[in-house]
Order: sequence, then C-alpha cells, then structure tokens
Amino acid sequence: MVKFVNLDDCPGFQELLRLARPSLASLLSATRVAGCEVPMAAGLVFNWGATPVDGAVLSALEKIARDQQLVEKYRMLAEGAVMNTGEKRMVLHHLARGQLGAPVVHNGRNLRDFYEGERRRVADFVRAVHAGTIRGSTGKEFSTAVQIGIGGSDLGPRALHIALERWAREHGRMKMDARFISNVDPDDANAVLARCDLERTLFILVSKSGTTQETLANEVLVRSRLEGAGLKPSGHMIAVTSETSPLARNPGYLDSFYIDDFIGGRYSSSSAVGGVVLSLAFGPESFSDFLDGAHKADRMALEPDIRRNAALLDALIGLYERNVLGMGTTAVLPYADALARFPAHLQQLDMESNGKRVNRDGAAISYSTGPVVFGEPGTNGQHSFYQLLHQGTDIVPLQFIGFLEGQTRGDVEVEGSTSRRKLQANLAAQIVAFARGQADDNPNKTFPGNRPSTLIRGTRLDPAALGALLAHFENKVMFQGFAWNINSFDQEGVQLGKLLAKRLLSGANGSANGTHGDDELLAAYAGLLLPPNA
Amino acid sequence: MVKFVNLDDCPGFQELLRLARPSLASLLSATRVAGCEVPMAAGLVFNWGATPVDGAVLSALEKIARDQQLVEKYRMLAEGAVMNTGEKRMVLHHLARGQLGAPVVHNGRNLRDFYEGERRRVADFVRAVHAGTIRGSTGKEFSTAVQIGIGGSDLGPRALHIALERWAREHGRMKMDARFISNVDPDDANAVLARCDLERTLFILVSKSGTTQETLANEVLVRSRLEGAGLKPSGHMIAVTSETSPLARNPGYLDSFYIDDFIGGRYSSSSAVGGVVLSLAFGPESFSDFLDGAHKADRMALEPDIRRNAALLDALIGLYERNVLGMGTTAVLPYADALARFPAHLQQLDMESNGKRVNRDGAAISYSTGPVVFGEPGTNGQHSFYQLLHQGTDIVPLQFIGFLEGQTRGDVEVEGSTSRRKLQANLAAQIVAFARGQADDNPNKTFPGNRPSTLIRGTRLDPAALGALLAHFENKVMFQGFAWNINSFDQEGVQLGKLLAKRLLSGANGSANGTHGDDELLAAYAGLLLPPNA
Repeated sequence: MVKFVNLDDCPGFQELLRLARPSLASLLSATRVAGCEVPMAAGLVFNWGATPVDGAVLSALEKIARDQQLVEKYRMLAEGAVMNTGEKRMVLHHLARGQLGAPVVHNGRNLRDFYEGERRRVADFVRAVHAGTIRGSTGKEFSTAVQIGIGGSDLGPRALHIALERWAREHGRMKMDARFISNVDPDDANAVLARCDLERTLFILVSKSGTTQETLANEVLVRSRLEGAGLKPSGHMIAVTSETSPLARNPGYLDSFYIDDFIGGRYSSSSAVGGVVLSLAFGPESFSDFLDGAHKADRMALEPDIRRNAALLDALIGLYERNVLGMGTTAVLPYADALARFPAHLQQLDMESNGKRVNRDGAAISYSTGPVVFGEPGTNGQHSFYQLLHQGTDIVPLQFIGFLEGQTRGDVEVEGSTSRRKLQANLAAQIVAFARGQADDNPNKTFPGNRPSTLIRGTRLDPAALGALLAHFENKVMFQGFAWNINSFDQEGVQLGKLLAKRLLSGANGSANGTHGDDELLAAYAGLLLPPNA
Repeated sequence: MVKFVNLDDCPGFQELLRLARPSLASLLSATRVAGCEVPMAAGLVFNWGATPVDGAVLSALEKIARDQQLVEKYRMLAEGAVMNTGEKRMVLHHLARGQLGAPVVHNGRNLRDFYEGERRRVADFVRAVHAGTIRGSTGKEFSTAVQIGIGGSDLGPRALHIALERWAREHGRMKMDARFISNVDPDDANAVLARCDLERTLFILVSKSGTTQETLANEVLVRSRLEGAGLKPSGHMIAVTSETSPLARNPGYLDSFYIDDFIGGRYSSSSAVGGVVLSLAFGPESFSDFLDGAHKADRMALEPDIRRNAALLDALIGLYERNVLGMGTTAVLPYADALARFPAHLQQLDMESNGKRVNRDGAAISYSTGPVVFGEPGTNGQHSFYQLLHQGTDIVPLQFIGFLEGQTRGDVEVEGSTSRRKLQANLAAQIVAFARGQADDNPNKTFPGNRPSTLIRGTRLDPAALGALLAHFENKVMFQGFAWNINSFDQEGVQLGKLLAKRLLSGANGSANGTHGDDELLAAYAGLLLPPNA
C-alpha cells in the first residue's frame, strides 16, 4: 500500500538530520571517484564522487527512498495513477517514449497506442514534406519550420534543436532549418519573420489548450504577414494541440497532431510538441533515436537500488543539499556548446515542477522545496559567474555534463593540446578545484573548497544520449517531488499574473475598473507602463 | 577623509538590523507607486514602489550610504584612486564614456584622451571598412564581423548586439552582421564558421592580456580555416588588446585597438572591447549614442541623495534584501525580447564582481555578499520559472525592465489589444501579483505575495537607453561592493581552475604527475573525461 507522507514525517529524513555532515574535501579521493559511478542509458555515466555523501548519509537517503516509496510511486505514475492531484490528471510523458508497465487505458483507448500513433502520423507528414509531396501554397518546397509556442512548447524543443543541429549537419541528418517564435513581444516574431522566405516556411502552432494568449497573438501576426505576402495561411500552418481544442480538425491548418492533458507542457518535448519540429529538422529517425534514449533512461529509473539508479540518487543528493545543507540554488554546467540552452529548459522543468509550497493534498509544508536552477555552458561560465561559485558566501551545488567527443570535426592543437582536450581538462580541473579548494597565505587567493558537484559524462552528444539526458532530469525532478510529497505536475502559481493581465486588458484604457481589491494598484502600474490603446 | 569599514561595523547597518521589517503587501498603494519614481538617464525611470522599504528603512539605508561614503568612493574611483586593491589598479571604465571629475593622468598620459583617442581610431577604421576602403585579402568588401573573445570580451558585447540589432534594422543603422565565438569547445567556432563567407569576414580577436587560453585556441582555429580557404589570415583579423600584450603592433593583424588594465573585462563593453564590434555592426554614431547614455547615467550616480540616485538606491535596496531579509538570489526580468541575453551579462557583472568572501584588505567577512543572478525575458519566463517565484519556498527579489514602445513595426490586435499592449499589461500585472498575492480557500491557489520587485521603465530601447541601463547596473554593483567593503574589480576565484587545467594539459597523457596534492584526484577525473592525446 503506497502512502503519501510529508518529508519531515519520514523517519529516514529525521535520521539524515541527526547525522554528522561529512566534509567533501576530506572524503574525496581517486578511489572514491572510481567507486561512485552509476551507469545511465545511452552510454552515459553518473558520477557522484564529488558530493558530501558518505556511507551513513547514503544509507539515510536509501531509507528515504524506501520510506517515501519513490520507485513505487514512479511505477504508479507510469501505469496511470492520478498523480497530478490538483488537476486530477494522469502523468504520462514517459508513455510517449515507451511502455514501462501495465497498459494505460483511458475512455477505452490505449494511450501508448495513441501517442505512438501520433508519432507515426507526424513521421508520415514529415516524410511527405521532405519528399516535396506536401508544399507551400505557391507550390514551393518547404525549407524552414518555425515553431510558435511558449514555455513548454518552446524551451524544450528549442534547447533540443540547438543540441542536435551540429550533430545533424555532420551526420547528413539536416533536413530543414528550424526557428522559434515565443514571446508576445512582437519584436520576437518580427525578427524571426524578417529572416524567413515565407513561401518556403511551414509554421507549427503549438498550444495544448488552443487558448495560450502569446501563441494566439503570434499566430495572428504570422497569418497577417502570410496574407500580406499573398500566401494562403492555411497552406503554411499545422497545429499541435489537444483533440478538444479549437485548433483541432480546423480547416485553418494543413494538418493537426495531438497530445492530451496527461502530458504537461514542460514534459512534452518527447510528444508531438517536440516531435514535429525535431522530425522536420533532423528526420523522424533522429527523433525516434531520441525517444529510445529517453525510454531506456526511464526503464533504468525503475531500479530500486539507489546505487544503481542515477536519477533517484541525483534526486536524493539534491534533497540532502537542499533540505539538510540549506543550499538554495543549483547550477547546471554543460561542457558542450551544443547544450547552450539546455539549462534554460531545466530551469523551467525544475522550477515550475517543484517550486511549490503546499503538499500534494494542498496542505502547507514547512520545509524547502525546489531550488533556483541556472546555468551556462563551460568554459564560458568559468569567465563569468564561477568567481561567486568558488569564493562567494553561499555554496551552490553544481551539475556538470561532458562528452569525450565533439559534434563537429575541425580542431587545432595549441601548446600541445587540442581545443577539445582543453575543454575536458577544464571540466576535470573545475570539479577538483570546487571540491578541494586551496589554502593560501593570502585570504583573497584562498579557495574554501567543499563545493559539491555531480558529473554526467558520455562519449558523444547524439539523439539517444540527449534523450537519456533529458529523461534523467525529468525523473530526478519527479523523484524529488515525491520525496517532498508535492505535486510536480501542476502550475497554479502562473495563474494570478495571467488573471490580472487579462483584467487590465479588458478594462477601458487599462484602467481596470472593477471589483478586484488591487484594481487601483493595477491602474497605477498601467498608467506607467501601458501605451495608449490602439 | 574616506574610511573603509566592513558593513557590520557600520552604524547604519546595525540600525537597519534593529528595525521592524515592513510588509510589502500592506505598504504598497497607488500613491506609493507614484511617489517612488527616480529619474534615470536617457529617459529611463527607476520605480521602487514594490519593495518592502518604508520611511524608517529608507533612512537607515541613507545612513549606510553616508557611513560607507558610497558616493565619495565612487568619485575617488572615477578620479583614479587604486580601488582594485588586490591587483593594485585604478578602475576607469567610466572614463571610457566621459570625464566625471578631475583628469586621470598615468605615466604622463591623460587616460580620458587615450580612451577617446582609441574610440576615434576605431571609428575611422570602421568607416573605412564600411566605405570599402579596407577590404578582405581577396579584395572583397567585408560583410560580417566575428568577435573572438570570452567572458567580458563576449557576454557584454553579445548582449548589447542582440539588444540593438532590431533597432538598427528599423533605423537604417545596420551596417554589417556580427557573430561571436567564445567557447573553447570547437563545436562553437565550427558552427559559427560554417555560416560565414570567409572572404567577406573580419575577425576581431579580443584579449586584454593576449594570453586567454580559449581565445588563442579559437584564433588558431580561425587562422587555419582562413588558410585552408586560400586567404591571408592577417588580412582578415584585427586585435583589441593592451599595448603590452603580444598581440599589440603585431603584423599578424590588420590593425590593433587598445585598452588597458584599468578597465576590467566585465566592465569593458564601453571600451574598444565592445566598441569595435558594435561600431562595425551599427556604425560609430550608434556606439557614441550608447556611450552618451552611459555617461549621463554615470553623472547621475554622483548624486548624494539616495532618493534621486537610482543606482545607489537600487544597490541599497538589494543590500537590505540580501543582508537583512536573507534573500540569496535575484532575477532580472526584461519585458523586451531584445534584452534576451542582457541577464546573462548581468550575471557575470554581478556574480564575478561581488561573489567575494574577503574584504578589500583581504580579511574574511562574516556577512553575505553578491547574490546569484539569473533571468530570461518576459513573457517567456512567466511560462517557465515564475511558478517558483510566485509560490516557491524562497523569496527571490525581481528586477523588471520594460519599454512603452517596441523596436520593430508590425503588430496585430487580438481580442481588443495589441501584442505590445499585452506584453506591458503582463508586466504591470506581475508586479502587483508578486507584491500583493491572493488569498484563496484552496492553499494551492493561494499566493503569499510580499515578493519584492523594482522596475526600470523607458520609452524605447535605443543606444542611449541601453547605455544608461548598462551603466545603471555597473554602478549598482559598484555601490554594493563599496557597502560590503569588498573589491568588486578583481576575480581571484577564477585562478585555481585555470591552474589545475594547465597542470592536466601539461602532464603526460593527462596523468598530471607532479607535486600538487590533488594530482591523484586530477588524474582520476582526467581518466574519465580526457580523450586520448592527439
């Protein structure tokens, strides 16, 4: 019988609080590094050597995993339990990449079949576009795909696109250019459209509900631009939406592809939300490889032994750093230029999922939940914010990512080493520098060390590795949510701002006359910020 | 007589600690919003209405400004005092945009004349490139500039370039494309070079010391690519460096432009480091307008009354949030797509300047210094990490930025409002939602409010406004550093990682045999991460 218990009611956590807090600098050794390896999917490896976790802490974390039944809850989720308690929904993004347990049937429909069926429909559509069977309204072949979406319909697909673009060029998988329009600031769409040959551009409108303010505004802007260019908008636009949205089966689109309420926006990269644009850009096979990598990671996350389950262990170490050591921020530092926007996606994934202050039943909790997440690629970050990471007054746990091989050919040897070798040497050096620090007679040159980090390493960043990497973080966030006993799958915190913006926009001249207690205040800010109404 | 005293030895700070902590939600009113306006340069306005600062707190902050002699120290700095104590250097980035006080003469040279002379040399060179007088090695006109630099030679110029690109297109100021290579990961340079017509590309090598590992490696990579294309590298490359570096007056470059040790990397956007690429892209006049905006902001930051000095007040409010309210992170949220990478630049500016744990004399301090800084443009962030900002367990102070007008034409009206109006309405609504929150019977739909924010607003984002915005944050960071009694101008924290990376790269096969205590550990990570030596 699975029970849902707050973290501070969990015996393993109480035990963890009582334990001595080991010094990372003393703990770390070459032997430990070799012993702290956990295999992941697609050839990746998770190394947690440089964390302040000794045998006693690990045992307590193991106890938390058992007490909080983390893997059992994951299995329940994968098999269709209503884990999104607030919205009373199942949580099925794993099912978009493969079957993990018992079939999930909803209203008589096997949902794995549904997701896989949509993936095949996307693949068929994409092949027809690539073959030139499906063309623009003036008969020209499509050369560019532009995704219109925001939040989960933007960050994940965009980060994954950047992550694979160079790989695709090197491996002959580059099929079409892809661009993204997200912000309601029309400067965004105008800048993207200025670089598009509209006759050859296919727009992908992505909104699950079909009511996202930003996305609909950008759709109208794009349609007016297409019309202005003498093109038929419906011949240049497809929709990714739910079957019940106004965009579904709508003659305004060339075709529509479906997701459902059981795949949340920030978890939707492996559904049609990511699938259409990534398949258009790199071919349906690349996207299938990505899903395979993610599915393998999902399978490995079912492993009950925390020593052999990278996502679970990563989650628990993060919890120790957050709830025992009191660290409020986490940095994601990929030593791979292709992962330039991957931290921005993880920022949404983590902060929107676990930035919560009530438990899954809606009761207030008294411990910290999700941290602030940020990051930039190395070595760039070394020349930017690493100063604070090394010598600031707060400790920020680090998540390093690195690959033996690059995505492109073309390297040079300078002072006895290639650029790639320099990149990797810097990564190795940073882990040691953060953990061990350095004494110096000059306090300004002293490094306190004891800055923990984890490392995910792989051979190369290809679609399968990228899928495994994404699934790792999704599963880490899920396990942390279970341990905190929160609902990682709703986002009530985004509603109030939306509501107040709508009040302002519906009021005459932004004066927001009405009954809301803050109308006077809204009007004051509107007076400062809103341009005269058109 | 100016004295340097730790923050916790400052009477104003002790007073601040004893004061009641006002509730923002109760404090905030339409009257307060109107009364909390501080004019900035270039038509910008700083509004601090939505901060938990009442009259008593403001008086204590004022006392800190007096006790710590913040404006006096700024004046000293501007007039050439050795404020970078660790490196025993003056700090003169303000002088690159204009004279603020007494002339600064070093080794018989008036440094304002030097910086201004270099700016004019840059302008002349750029005009010759635009006129086609200076051409590539095969006689073709240059159409693209590529900056090769990292950290301060990359983030600022890159963020400013993105910020002005759309403005320049609309105003006929677009002269050349510009791109940036920074990461030592060769995937970065390879991807940029794949999109360049090398015959028409001018590379700007930026390294003050002329010894930056990443930049020199990328230079060799670019030179080999130019040679491979049958081009003469020296005809396609200029240098921005110090007069004493190996790159200065070197026949390997078409020309060289100079900075000196008194302008730190993260403060160098208004020197030739930013000036060359921005002038090539948008013309020397645009860059001059940017400098004028920054210089006006610098002048206004000399104002002793904190109620009329936006940078000073912003600094002190941040200090209150950090050192009294215990908030460890700050988010920068520009409601302007063009400022997409401005938060990444501020992340370096702030975290590298104030992420310090010793005071300016090198003695350990016992209070918190610089926060973690992160951010993304609105409304994008609303669909990403705002969940945690509204309902997470930690409070993150927010810095909003917004403009009445956009940079591009082309907007549409949907449901009674333009996209621009929607953008601004969201900004107004978020400030109110964060500050006031909302009660609800359902705790999951409750917003606790009391989330502080400041707002910088302007009419439009043009070069002058951008200069004023950049200078505002530089001066804010400087004032905070003075208040904390730290040196905001060195970066000793980046040295250890560099050192250990060099040890690894110089060792045979990455085994790093040597005398360093961590060599075994370095070798362990090298074994996991380093590819076989070429």
